Amino acid sequence: MELVTIEDIRAAAKLIGDAVLRTPLVACPWTDPSRPLSLKPENLQAIGAFKVRGAHHMLARLTPDARARGVVAYSSGNHAQAVAYAARVAGIPATIVIDDTAPPIKVAATEELGAEVRLVPLTERAAVARELARESGATLVPPFDHPDIIAGQGTIGLEIAEDLPEVAAVLVPISGGGLASGIGVAVKALCPNAAVFGVEPELAADTRDSFAAGELVHWPAEQRVRTSADGLRAEPSELTFAHLRSVLDGVLTVSEDEIRSTIGLLARRARLVAEPSGAVAPAAYLHRADQLPAGPTVAVVSGGNIDPALLAEAVQA
Amino acid sequence: MELVTIEDIRAAAKLIGDAVLRTPLVACPWTDPSRPLSLKPENLQAIGAFKVRGAHHMLARLTPDARARGVVAYSSGNHAQAVAYAARVAGIPATIVIDDTAPPIKVAATEELGAEVRLVPLTERAAVARELARESGATLVPPFDHPDIIAGQGTIGLEIAEDLPEVAAVLVPISGGGLASGIGVAVKALCPNAAVFGVEPELAADTRDSFAAGELVHWPAEQRVRTSADGLRAEPSELTFAHLRSVLDGVLTVSEDEIRSTIGLLARRARLVAEPSGAVAPAAYLHRADQLPAGPTVAVVSGGNIDPALLAEAVQA
Repeated sequence: MELVTIEDIRAAAKLIGDAVLRTPLVACPWTDPSRPLSLKPENLQAIGAFKVRGAHHMLARLTPDARARGVVAYSSGNHAQAVAYAARVAGIPATIVIDDTAPPIKVAATEELGAEVRLVPLTERAAVARELARESGATLVPPFDHPDIIAGQGTIGLEIAEDLPEVAAVLVPISGGGLASGIGVAVKALCPNAAVFGVEPELAADTRDSFAAGELVHWPAEQRVRTSADGLRAEPSELTFAHLRSVLDGVLTVSEDEIRSTIGLLARRARLVAEPSGAVAPAAYLHRADQLPAGPTVAVVSGGNIDPALLAEAVQA
Repeated sequence: MELVTIEDIRAAAKLIGDAVLRTPLVACPWTDPSRPLSLKPENLQAIGAFKVRGAHHMLARLTPDARARGVVAYSSGNHAQAVAYAARVAGIPATIVIDDTAPPIKVAATEELGAEVRLVPLTERAAVARELARESGATLVPPFDHPDIIAGQGTIGLEIAEDLPEVAAVLVPISGGGLASGIGVAVKALCPNAAVFGVEPELAADTRDSFAAGELVHWPAEQRVRTSADGLRAEPSELTFAHLRSVLDGVLTVSEDEIRSTIGLLARRARLVAEPSGAVAPAAYLHRADQLPAGPTVAVVSGGNIDPALLAEAVQA
């Protein structure tokens, strides 16, 4: 299987240009000086999540013909809004297929970004999106299972290596694995001495099990949905798992309590609003020190789209 | 009176170097496209406020002798922690004089940064700090009334002009006026067509009145303390007022309700935690559109040290 390379990621960074925020590393001077933490705040991207990087990149690579035919995506989460946003910026028509049980606020947010929304039963979401793409000739933009998406997310790793070449450990959440694949490729190429760890909720630790087994292990969907980290309920594909095996030093897990208390800490001490999925990497820094190397550490805060009631509860805990 | 110049601010940026975070402009795609808002998130600085810029700059300009004698500051707010932090980074001993009614958490945070804390009655704070400086030969680092502080805060304006040269309006909170003075000088020098507005809480609108009167008008301290924006209760000095008159296009005010609702909006839609003082500039963008020019607008989010209970309330409103 052909893996995304550092050259692909450099090319992606060039194509994306100023269309996404080049996030800074935010230092946390309240952490252990022997392993100082910096946060990569991807929650500050336009729609509140790193997903805009892969979406912008994939759209930037479309031919003029393909652009005219538009794009289709299915998701009820950050990917939906990322594709809608990137399409609006690029002037490309977008249709987003969302399951009819999704909160109306997510549907409204996607429509507000100019996308056409199709509501269908959850089980039909993927099929409807594929059918729409087939009928109209639109390009299906997948959330992670595509080299363009992986290379786009990898630009985060490029920036980490540029800003902190002495980094000793990088912590990245894992869901479908596109983010960890791209960042891992970039960091391992540019900072070969740095360790890269994936982080999962204990309640959706399929990739940890896959690493232990040496092959993709599947968890039933009804188990994965238990975690509050709603962005981390997907599983890697063959493509992303091949990347993860090649670039990760291991997979750590964190508990729901650790996720929630980290959301509170990030708001109080780093002044950043993280969603549960965005808090797992800093949570691993805080609670899995015994499994991490010493030295400067970067944790990716992947997104910040959190239910206000949950944020209110976490910040006061 | 000699005012700080753009050359002073460029020199400050060079001296400060990497000691402070070069904050990005965070785009808010949910705002009016005819006057798109970008936030300058100074709440992401190490101690959660822009104050580290002036403090780092003033300390960087001390002679080796003066460094050995240390620094003194009086404050119970962000300035205390900014001086303590900058002194720790520079390896300079720091004594911070705090009033004995300050919340213990602020005292602890300052001590955690390695500063010696002296607790005294509020009315004796300034006198004790001056006496300490006189006795020990330490340098007193004032919160705003000094050209080095103004030039340090002005580096924010330099970055705004670099990142968004087509900016039409810049909104900056006013308390003692050091921040607005520095940013105003930089923006007016580099983007002469941009308007720069100061923003105050209605409950501490002394500078608005001073602008109307054409001279410094004082509000009794017991009136100024009514606002929840505890960082905006000071008044300009002759030095900062001279700068403000020379560079500001006007002073806008916002209500306490507007401040609180903006804190909630920034957390939900920009994923940034702002303290009340840090929310007044975006609040003016949102609620004083009729007094602002069209075009790209930057609002400075000056700090993010907020009581968790207040954040919890605001985010759910």
